[in-house]
Amino acid sequence: MSLNTQPYKGTRDFYPEDKRKQKYMFGVLRDVVESFGYHEYDAPLIEPFEIYAAKTGDEIVNQQLYSFEDRGGRKVAIRPEMTPSVSRMVAARRQELAYPLRWYSIPNLWRYERPQRGRLREHWQLNVDIFGVEDIEADFEIIQVADSILKVFGAKPDNYKIRVNSLKAAASVYKDLKLNNEQHVIVSKLLDKRSKISEDEFNEALDNAVGEKVAASLRKYWTEEKPPENIAKLLKLLEKEQITNAVFDPEIVRGFDYYTDIVFEVYDNSAENNRSMFGGGRYDGLVGAFGVEPVPTVGFGMGDVTLQNFLEANKLIPKLEPETNVVAILIGDVYEPAQKVMSELRSQGLNVAVDSTNRNLDAKIKSAAKGGIKYALFIGEQELATGKYKLKNLETGQELEIAGDEIVKNLKPEK
Amino acid sequence: MSLNTQPYKGTRDFYPEDKRKQKYMFGVLRDVVESFGYHEYDAPLIEPFEIYAAKTGDEIVNQQLYSFEDRGGRKVAIRPEMTPSVSRMVAARRQELAYPLRWYSIPNLWRYERPQRGRLREHWQLNVDIFGVEDIEADFEIIQVADSILKVFGAKPDNYKIRVNSLKAAASVYKDLKLNNEQHVIVSKLLDKRSKISEDEFNEALDNAVGEKVAASLRKYWTEEKPPENIAKLLKLLEKEQITNAVFDPEIVRGFDYYTDIVFEVYDNSAENNRSMFGGGRYDGLVGAFGVEPVPTVGFGMGDVTLQNFLEANKLIPKLEPETNVVAILIGDVYEPAQKVMSELRSQGLNVAVDSTNRNLDAKIKSAAKGGIKYALFIGEQELATGKYKLKNLETGQELEIAGDEIVKNLKPEK
Repeated sequence: MSLNTQPYKGTRDFYPEDKRKQKYMFGVLRDVVESFGYHEYDAPLIEPFEIYAAKTGDEIVNQQLYSFEDRGGRKVAIRPEMTPSVSRMVAARRQELAYPLRWYSIPNLWRYERPQRGRLREHWQLNVDIFGVEDIEADFEIIQVADSILKVFGAKPDNYKIRVNSLKAAASVYKDLKLNNEQHVIVSKLLDKRSKISEDEFNEALDNAVGEKVAASLRKYWTEEKPPENIAKLLKLLEKEQITNAVFDPEIVRGFDYYTDIVFEVYDNSAENNRSMFGGGRYDGLVGAFGVEPVPTVGFGMGDVTLQNFLEANKLIPKLEPETNVVAILIGDVYEPAQKVMSELRSQGLNVAVDSTNRNLDAKIKSAAKGGIKYALFIGEQELATGKYKLKNLETGQELEIAGDEIVKNLKPEK
Repeated sequence: MSLNTQPYKGTRDFYPEDKRKQKYMFGVLRDVVESFGYHEYDAPLIEPFEIYAAKTGDEIVNQQLYSFEDRGGRKVAIRPEMTPSVSRMVAARRQELAYPLRWYSIPNLWRYERPQRGRLREHWQLNVDIFGVEDIEADFEIIQVADSILKVFGAKPDNYKIRVNSLKAAASVYKDLKLNNEQHVIVSKLLDKRSKISEDEFNEALDNAVGEKVAASLRKYWTEEKPPENIAKLLKLLEKEQITNAVFDPEIVRGFDYYTDIVFEVYDNSAENNRSMFGGGRYDGLVGAFGVEPVPTVGFGMGDVTLQNFLEANKLIPKLEPETNVVAILIGDVYEPAQKVMSELRSQGLNVAVDSTNRNLDAKIKSAAKGGIKYALFIGEQELATGKYKLKNLETGQELEIAGDEIVKNLKPEK
């Protein structure tokens, strides 16, 4: 019986052409966040179960977490998000670290979900966090970084919308309406899944949770356009930096229990996606959950699947060339002497593959072209003797006879 | 009760200074393997359990695999190695792919081991594989790539030794000695764990498995210095390429069941390590296990932990600077107008963090220095008005007063 060639449900194989897209995307992410002074960190894929049980939220922990017992009987989980890990790491060196602390990472995360567009069981997520800044400048910077990333990819302000809210302001409204804690939680969860259920379902659940009268007041509040003071200040800062597509939206909550005030979500405006692409917010209490003095923190997580959908919908991923510049196609028994030519080209920065198989020339050329490689360099006894080589552009069919020391000049992509 | 700040046993947190080392190492790995025409791919972290049960080997599957049932009742495993995943991917597109196919990846792998020097539960491993070449050129190239990596890191030939063996030649010796299949397996397993058990234990187990007379013949064979024909050809090719630290060693086997002929291991000669650092070999049957026509394959896997130990023992990791070039230290309420200065520096390729906290100047300078950042740029109302800024080198204490458009020139690391 033979083994199945399919990857595990809800995951992706990255063939080289897929991996190149990912590398391109991650390269832009790294460049932009580093330009704002962020440093890359990483954490283990597996964490003790408890760090998610504390604050990650019921839906993820009870329905989506990949958790199991290890061979020593410890209950562990594959990370469904990076925030608990990074909070743990900051807590472990609370005193030694220098603040403001700016960190980022691009981990792969796992959630047991029903696979659908934009949602897979394994995805990668840029995590950007600033630790140690209580004031609104940190909230501003985090949104500024997120916005810069999209702009550096080539996105225009009307391709996306930034919706911001203040959970503290919302809590104060809930308090005025005399919602108890339980009702507060139900209302937040309902808002979080609003886009996934029907309007009727939402309204019925809301009426049941808080009664029709309070529900009516809440509905009125959610149409409120005048932002609370902190959001007004934030929006003003954003506007000064030409971030003009940010708005106050009192319906924005986030799916995690650890957020403490300002939260935001970036919406993809393209017709085929038209949903929340990613988001983040302030979570001042999570580092403190590890037994140290709390550290004010703001961060966001940007998933690769929704990002790639956004970029592709807006045609923002350029054509990416294979890593290999040229295939050396050997004519006859010249494997040993051809090494010198190839080494020389490699030492000059070219990526050189070799086809040393016994197939005929035509089969070798076809195979190189099939592999997407742009140039073939022919090396036989005559070429080695004269130092003149035939270089073929496999896309255009054009051939050139050139000296060995002119090859690099003809092949190397201009920077 | 507060949460524990320790990472899961046998794993590492990568603080920025650790991550920089890893990025430096992976950067060299990528550059070298790409120079030989290899393309990067990736596969999901979790695979169906069956693909390891088939050929990975009893010890890993029964004692070290992180396997569990997912929420849908599927038996899955976190990858302990990459070879089954890459074989699955090649099998899935057996016809569409172009050969020789050169692929590499740097996945993280998981094994439930007793943590010790050079051996952790989570490690990263460069996997380099060439598919579709039956001849010795593929075996040669794989060793050539491995050797080039070490040389590009700055290693000298006497820092390591390459030991090669032919499992086909060994099988023919075993056949002459009339070993049955079971004995063949026991002998291979014994050789594989030889360095982990005492000489007496080894000898006793060998005598028990094959009888004293055959054991004596085996011991004699293992001192054989004359290589079989294919190894002789391989060593000759290596020598021509100035790879002079490769030797025939009939005791080399590998821990995986899928190897079919030539195998190799690279030994770390440094006193504090002095063990097998990494290895690889030919496995012509694994792609075929996925129900397609077999593809001849040679590859190796180089782990990050043993590699880093090797590089550190030989002092081959250079001093690595933080990603951030400069911290903008704000004087007074200039957060908004300072944005323009910082944006301009970022657009010129500098990585600029900002300290907008209300602490005093001295505290801000100390914090920047503690974070390892080399320069501080002071921005206050006067600086913004005159366009002249004070730039302080936090390592030397040297201060410079310069115009805004001269900052980049003073800061950017020379390439």
